[in-house]
Amino acid sequence: MEKKIYLDESEMPKKWYNLAADLPMLPPLGPDGKPISPEMLAPVFPMNLIEQEVSTERWISIPEEVQGMLKIWRPSPLIRAFELEKALGTPAKIFYKNESVSPAGSHKPNTAIPQAWYNKQFGIKRITTETGAGQWGSALSFACALIGGIECKVFMVRVSYEQKPFRQILMNTWGGTCVASPSMETAAGRAVLAEFPDTPGSLGIAISEAIEAAVTDPTGKTRYGLGSVLNHVMLHQTVIGLEAKKQLAKVGIKKPDIVIGCCGGGSNFAGLAFPFIQDKINGDDIEIIGAEPASCPTLTKGTFMYDHGDIAKMTPLLPMYSLGHNFIPAPIHAGGLRYHGMSPLVSAAVRAGYVTPIAINQSECFEAGMLFAKTEGIVPAPETTHAIAATIREAKKAKEEGKEKIIIFNLSGHGLMDLVGYDKYMRGQLSDYEMSDKEIGDNLHQMDGYPKP
Amino acid sequence: MEKKIYLDESEMPKKWYNLAADLPMLPPLGPDGKPISPEMLAPVFPMNLIEQEVSTERWISIPEEVQGMLKIWRPSPLIRAFELEKALGTPAKIFYKNESVSPAGSHKPNTAIPQAWYNKQFGIKRITTETGAGQWGSALSFACALIGGIECKVFMVRVSYEQKPFRQILMNTWGGTCVASPSMETAAGRAVLAEFPDTPGSLGIAISEAIEAAVTDPTGKTRYGLGSVLNHVMLHQTVIGLEAKKQLAKVGIKKPDIVIGCCGGGSNFAGLAFPFIQDKINGDDIEIIGAEPASCPTLTKGTFMYDHGDIAKMTPLLPMYSLGHNFIPAPIHAGGLRYHGMSPLVSAAVRAGYVTPIAINQSECFEAGMLFAKTEGIVPAPETTHAIAATIREAKKAKEEGKEKIIIFNLSGHGLMDLVGYDKYMRGQLSDYEMSDKEIGDNLHQMDGYPKP
Repeated sequence: MEKKIYLDESEMPKKWYNLAADLPMLPPLGPDGKPISPEMLAPVFPMNLIEQEVSTERWISIPEEVQGMLKIWRPSPLIRAFELEKALGTPAKIFYKNESVSPAGSHKPNTAIPQAWYNKQFGIKRITTETGAGQWGSALSFACALIGGIECKVFMVRVSYEQKPFRQILMNTWGGTCVASPSMETAAGRAVLAEFPDTPGSLGIAISEAIEAAVTDPTGKTRYGLGSVLNHVMLHQTVIGLEAKKQLAKVGIKKPDIVIGCCGGGSNFAGLAFPFIQDKINGDDIEIIGAEPASCPTLTKGTFMYDHGDIAKMTPLLPMYSLGHNFIPAPIHAGGLRYHGMSPLVSAAVRAGYVTPIAINQSECFEAGMLFAKTEGIVPAPETTHAIAATIREAKKAKEEGKEKIIIFNLSGHGLMDLVGYDKYMRGQLSDYEMSDKEIGDNLHQMDGYPKP
Repeated sequence: MEKKIYLDESEMPKKWYNLAADLPMLPPLGPDGKPISPEMLAPVFPMNLIEQEVSTERWISIPEEVQGMLKIWRPSPLIRAFELEKALGTPAKIFYKNESVSPAGSHKPNTAIPQAWYNKQFGIKRITTETGAGQWGSALSFACALIGGIECKVFMVRVSYEQKPFRQILMNTWGGTCVASPSMETAAGRAVLAEFPDTPGSLGIAISEAIEAAVTDPTGKTRYGLGSVLNHVMLHQTVIGLEAKKQLAKVGIKKPDIVIGCCGGGSNFAGLAFPFIQDKINGDDIEIIGAEPASCPTLTKGTFMYDHGDIAKMTPLLPMYSLGHNFIPAPIHAGGLRYHGMSPLVSAAVRAGYVTPIAINQSECFEAGMLFAKTEGIVPAPETTHAIAATIREAKKAKEEGKEKIIIFNLSGHGLMDLVGYDKYMRGQLSDYEMSDKEIGDNLHQMDGYPKP
């Protein structure tokens, strides 16, 4: 059997899969507690993306020009982790979808390119966004460079901005600009800095700043782009799982036993998992695992509720698992997983019992990442190590049970620009942070009086 | 036409191509001016690699286990640069071999894996080496991790060590260790530091240190591994060109018009070019261009002579183009190209008229790299930008001449870990350095009295 399973470019998905067609969803609510209309989102997103956001069509066509740009690196290879299997002595067959092969190094360009394309179609000249670890900000800068004629402005969570100076250069190289968040450029940023001058920042704060910067542009030619959480983002990422299914079929595998992704806002997890959740809804027996950090246990310890996606309450109330919108997670090294909420679609899939969430500490994750680097060669992003740690747990379980399980996980990105965490791990300087129930309860109090799902 | 041209793993080359079979070579000489014997190299390299170094067999089998490890990322894609062509308005068809897809981010693992494998076969427990930009040190650390049971110790040129702290973490993650060169760990390093405490270092110094550390190990279980220059390194890299020929054939191209690579020690250039030089020797009309930095113009302004590969004269005298073995190039950002000498095989090919060398300043190269990043998406390594700048020159020439030329260049690595140069370029802080004829002459005086080729 070959190590890498490729598809031809002609076998790339021509349509995205929309899980909202198969899973009943609660609507987002406005400040008055009533469902919001597409028009209410118009200052924030272009209408063509809003249409995707609210769509319940099962299949949505990928524009040909977008397909062309995705071909720079797609279809991504599905790789059999022979060496990792050997090191673990497991009878399980482990496959990973290698999303690190994109020029930005992660799965994020899968949605950055269509987002930039739809914005340009709508006449938008500038996109604002937030970024945690920097993967999303890099991806959107990359996408705007390819598409041309559209600027990209990134608010980067301060702790990551300081840990990862080269991320800023990368965004600049593709023509994007980047500031640390909270910044003095927005009212939301200034308010946080006034109260907490030493804050490490959070995705929730950075989102507030990016939305504010978009909606206050007097030309009306700026919109906001989100790298995760929203329905249209999950939609764009489904190319991952759609390709993976074809690739498994090429080696005679009808269905995997276990599908694994790491969960922050939910996008890489959804990208791989949603096409398999469709099969699960239709009766297939597949275990689907979302791995999140123990320091930010949205799915395992949060509550399903209506909450805002950002600290300044600029987003609608979304039906999702949350730790509370002003929760600022500990500054762990998987910056992309430091988010208080979770994609409403992923939340609905968890709530309906299709997904099993687990929480893992970062030291176990970096240990898994080191083993992966030394066996399979690729140094995974700190976020991705959560999926690898979960995979290793399942591969060991398969060994104990003596079962030849098929496991597939999403290698959402490489860690070549995120090595500080590895350095601390090797020096024994890495701390684990687990949220206490009291801490979680205190955060959730702020949602007393909000509409209940 | 598809953007990416893949080969199946089953189509990977099973043998390396040895240009020494088709090109008359002068022997390396010992300190006495007489040809050295394989036995004289035995303290430095394992005998199985020495056999490859002196072989004149045209085809040498790639061990199956090595083929298996190369499959982690090989065959690498050949990519049509549609977007770059469009930006240049050129009728030329530009292809690039994407060697940046290896886990270490460059072509270097193509030889790191067989070198580590042959050393392990020979019972070696530890490999010492030098690295410039860090690509080779990373690659050898990666290879030793995959092969297991063999340590890797890297002497990294000081200026790069300081510019690229994350490179060290990457080597550590794969289990390698790394010190700045010149170091206090060797007599060669201490001698340089005593005379020039502020030296930026050079590959020539780092090679001296690594060889000394190998040959002075009292257990006899340490050998030295070189990432470029030597015949067996060029040999291992020919998988690049052998794959590229098959890939061009797949899209109906019998031969390219122009083949381009950047030249430091010669390995990525040789990897792509040698299989095409074989065709040129056999009568094909192909222009083959080696692009080097104007600050270190070995092929364009150096002299073909017998010179040492390192500053402490620990290597044999090699028949090559050189700027003089104690030449310390200006600290440009393409650290991998800062080498006084040139592969004897590449030198012989230049001397025989099969290769046209050109020298380019780093500002033109970074400009080319920025254009490539914004069109094709991939941020190239500073070394690689020299090949891109040469490609752009040729594509513009094709436009002037109205000729639909087929150009292929080697994208030897990505620049995600080498972004400082881009930052300086964008800030307008980048200086060009051109060597004067006097400077070159002064350096070459040291070889007065050496044997002449």
